[in-house]
Amino acid sequence: MAGLQTPDQALGVQGDEDTGDGLQSSHRMLSFSDALLSIIATVMILPVTHTKIYPEEFDTSIQKLLATRIAVYLMTFLLVTVAWTAHIRLFQVVGKIDDTLALLNLACMMTITFLPYTFSLMVAFPDVPLGIFLFCACVITIGLVQAVIVGYAFHYPHLLNQRISHSAHKAAFRQHVLGVVLRGPALCFVAALFSLFFFPVSYLLMATVIFLPYLSKAAGWCRDRIMGPGEPPAQSLDFFTFDLHEPLSKERVEAFSDGVYAIVATLLILDICEDNVPDPKDVEEQFQGSLVTALGSFGPHFLAYFGSFATVGLLWFVHHSLFLHVRRATRAMGLLNTLALAFVGGLPLAYQRTSALAQQPHEELESIRVSCAIIFFASIFQFATWTAALLRQREALRPSARFGGREHALMFAKLALYPCASLLAFASTCFLRRFSTAIFHLMQVAVPFAFLLLRLGLRLALAGLRGLRGLRGLTRPAGPLRNDQGAADAQAQLLPAPC
Amino acid sequence: MAGLQTPDQALGVQGDEDTGDGLQSSHRMLSFSDALLSIIATVMILPVTHTKIYPEEFDTSIQKLLATRIAVYLMTFLLVTVAWTAHIRLFQVVGKIDDTLALLNLACMMTITFLPYTFSLMVAFPDVPLGIFLFCACVITIGLVQAVIVGYAFHYPHLLNQRISHSAHKAAFRQHVLGVVLRGPALCFVAALFSLFFFPVSYLLMATVIFLPYLSKAAGWCRDRIMGPGEPPAQSLDFFTFDLHEPLSKERVEAFSDGVYAIVATLLILDICEDNVPDPKDVEEQFQGSLVTALGSFGPHFLAYFGSFATVGLLWFVHHSLFLHVRRATRAMGLLNTLALAFVGGLPLAYQRTSALAQQPHEELESIRVSCAIIFFASIFQFATWTAALLRQREALRPSARFGGREHALMFAKLALYPCASLLAFASTCFLRRFSTAIFHLMQVAVPFAFLLLRLGLRLALAGLRGLRGLRGLTRPAGPLRNDQGAADAQAQLLPAPC
Repeated sequence: MAGLQTPDQALGVQGDEDTGDGLQSSHRMLSFSDALLSIIATVMILPVTHTKIYPEEFDTSIQKLLATRIAVYLMTFLLVTVAWTAHIRLFQVVGKIDDTLALLNLACMMTITFLPYTFSLMVAFPDVPLGIFLFCACVITIGLVQAVIVGYAFHYPHLLNQRISHSAHKAAFRQHVLGVVLRGPALCFVAALFSLFFFPVSYLLMATVIFLPYLSKAAGWCRDRIMGPGEPPAQSLDFFTFDLHEPLSKERVEAFSDGVYAIVATLLILDICEDNVPDPKDVEEQFQGSLVTALGSFGPHFLAYFGSFATVGLLWFVHHSLFLHVRRATRAMGLLNTLALAFVGGLPLAYQRTSALAQQPHEELESIRVSCAIIFFASIFQFATWTAALLRQREALRPSARFGGREHALMFAKLALYPCASLLAFASTCFLRRFSTAIFHLMQVAVPFAFLLLRLGLRLALAGLRGLRGLRGLTRPAGPLRNDQGAADAQAQLLPAPC
Repeated sequence: MAGLQTPDQALGVQGDEDTGDGLQSSHRMLSFSDALLSIIATVMILPVTHTKIYPEEFDTSIQKLLATRIAVYLMTFLLVTVAWTAHIRLFQVVGKIDDTLALLNLACMMTITFLPYTFSLMVAFPDVPLGIFLFCACVITIGLVQAVIVGYAFHYPHLLNQRISHSAHKAAFRQHVLGVVLRGPALCFVAALFSLFFFPVSYLLMATVIFLPYLSKAAGWCRDRIMGPGEPPAQSLDFFTFDLHEPLSKERVEAFSDGVYAIVATLLILDICEDNVPDPKDVEEQFQGSLVTALGSFGPHFLAYFGSFATVGLLWFVHHSLFLHVRRATRAMGLLNTLALAFVGGLPLAYQRTSALAQQPHEELESIRVSCAIIFFASIFQFATWTAALLRQREALRPSARFGGREHALMFAKLALYPCASLLAFASTCFLRRFSTAIFHLMQVAVPFAFLLLRLGLRLALAGLRGLRGLRGLTRPAGPLRNDQGAADAQAQLLPAPC
């Protein structure tokens, strides 16, 4: 296609690849890293979904195992997203890559992929310091590799982000970035030392490493709210650009989210392809050679797969619609998006339980409620992401999705559909216990059609509203909710200006 | 970062998201589809790697099972790439999407993810027509959804690719695209009918569906070689743009490859996180409470993981370097790239065998040879992709990677490193059977360093060559291998012009 741009042309790379000095745009390497990190973040849901539960032995030990594994999953997810955020920061400083940096990045990725394992070791053996020791070793390795990347990039300044390579405070920048990169590993080094004689302190230090970015952000936010935005010292203004006030790269948030949605949507097919092809011998012996009957016994699994895929696919669709209207992702949006993704990662668990317990009707109710709750939390955090964007809408959103914008109502409807549907299904199971399965399946079938008809329904609703206002408008000359850009801007100005 | 473009700006989308008519650039939806398809393509390696082999029962039935599963894997991979190619074609015609198209695309994806399962059913029960019946049902569903997409896009022509929406032959285009989309499903419908009474014909028809694009391409290529490029009739020139002569979208080839490399690199960590966390009870009973000893027994698994990750990561690195120099991907390059990816998908199998058989030294030799062979084929097909690009270098490559370009020699060295190393390791195991494991591990450790030092080594080699030529150059005034752009262009003109 003659009119098709190559991604490098399209991304505005000025043909650096052709100068022959081995410089490359980092775009594709970052996508690949995002894909790796998103897979690693969702890996730990597998031990949870594969926990075999038989009702007769559903005692406290199994409950404890399940709770432990869910905790491991959530912590791993948080941990990997912290590593991912650090990776974003690092490659906001390093603008271009060459072969050496690409190889160093691969080494960094390899170490990160090992983190979940050390973490699950730590949870399985809370009294043995080996897990925490290995964890600290990984974090220190990652820190050292990243420090080498920073050192290398500052040694060849053409690799740096243009704003830094043209800055007069380059040495100060290097100090600062090295400090950010090595802060966590230094804490982990102390934690590793403590793990040899008094490891509770190690856990404390480790928690500090993980929650530090969020805590400092929350503290800064509170301080700004209480004391008003303080004047940062003149020289450190540049620093803040790469530390606290910098919004996340929208492109990388999208790539990471896509990876999580894609792997979660296909997690169940991995199991189905492996476990649900019946053995020819079994078909002969148990089902009198009838393959259809044999497959019929797997029916709930297939239903669960299609249900899970549809839900994840539609949540991706909502995310996609939302981020079409997003200009830049703030930190709060990043955190809320991460929480939404963590619950999306829990969906296969919900559906696995739904399908596994379909044979035991007395467990059915509970598993359907768990599914509804997970869907509710995944979608409500998506909604919260949008709310966070609306709070700083001038910076974060395109005009059409702001208050009063043309797509605002549609966006609201899209984001509200799943929270409402799951809440409704949950409530119905309280009143109509007997029909809970039917209600759940009805929801699964109805929601995709609701999405298809959303625009139509919304138009009808707005027309109805306008009709109502028209009746009332006979007394008032100009309605405050006129649906055009002027009104949107006027309304936007009524809101407190984003700080 | 103020200087960072959002992907939509960067991709040259003219702010259509803000007009409020629900039009969207299809960029992110295509990346998501690529991620899903690449995961599905590599899923079927899991049943292969999870086949438990104990040497005492390694009889013909296990061999047959393994061979069957490998065949299923390769066929599934081919099948998914055919579906992926069709998806590329379709969204070359449809340039923009709206909500309805995004939802239809999700439905299409959901059906495609089910194809591997029907295929493995077909192989497990070759005498039962149900598998082929389900397969045909899937293909027909996909075809119908795609036909709806085409119909919808032609009904709202602003969704179409600009060249088509401005064309005078729009109706003819629609006929043609619908024909392409429905050709396979129509064949499958006949196959489904035949499966009811004489199913060998169904298999034949199915094979036609899968291999049709490759066969027609090969036939066209042969015809062009033998008879010279024929004059296509004037009106069908436009058609050919979207059917035969159209190179694949480079961006989507990259996205699909990234997905395969990312999922393959992490396939082993999925197993490790799930299976290799020792049970606290076992540690107490079998290892006297020593976690280190317990982990020591998993040592080979960890080594296998790091080895596999490093190999896949470096093969990705080579692929990344190669595609930096690629302008457009031709069909031949697409096919060779697919074959390379299929072998990359086999890498976890090789490493799983290496780690599983580490305890049985007499099987070691064989599994190391299998590993070397898989690495060799994966890397030699990457090399072949480059060769195919060089054959049509004006169209397919940037100047620096063409014959005589500045990066040509480095690219050659990068692509040749893995084929040479694996071939060397394979040959050494023939002479030094006793040290085969050591040789294999040496290769794994040496190759990453070789990549780091490649540029340096190449410079030394070129300097040596130049020195030699300098000695000979005293008799000849101008060497034919001068390493600058003029020479490169001059040399390029000596080659047959790309047809």
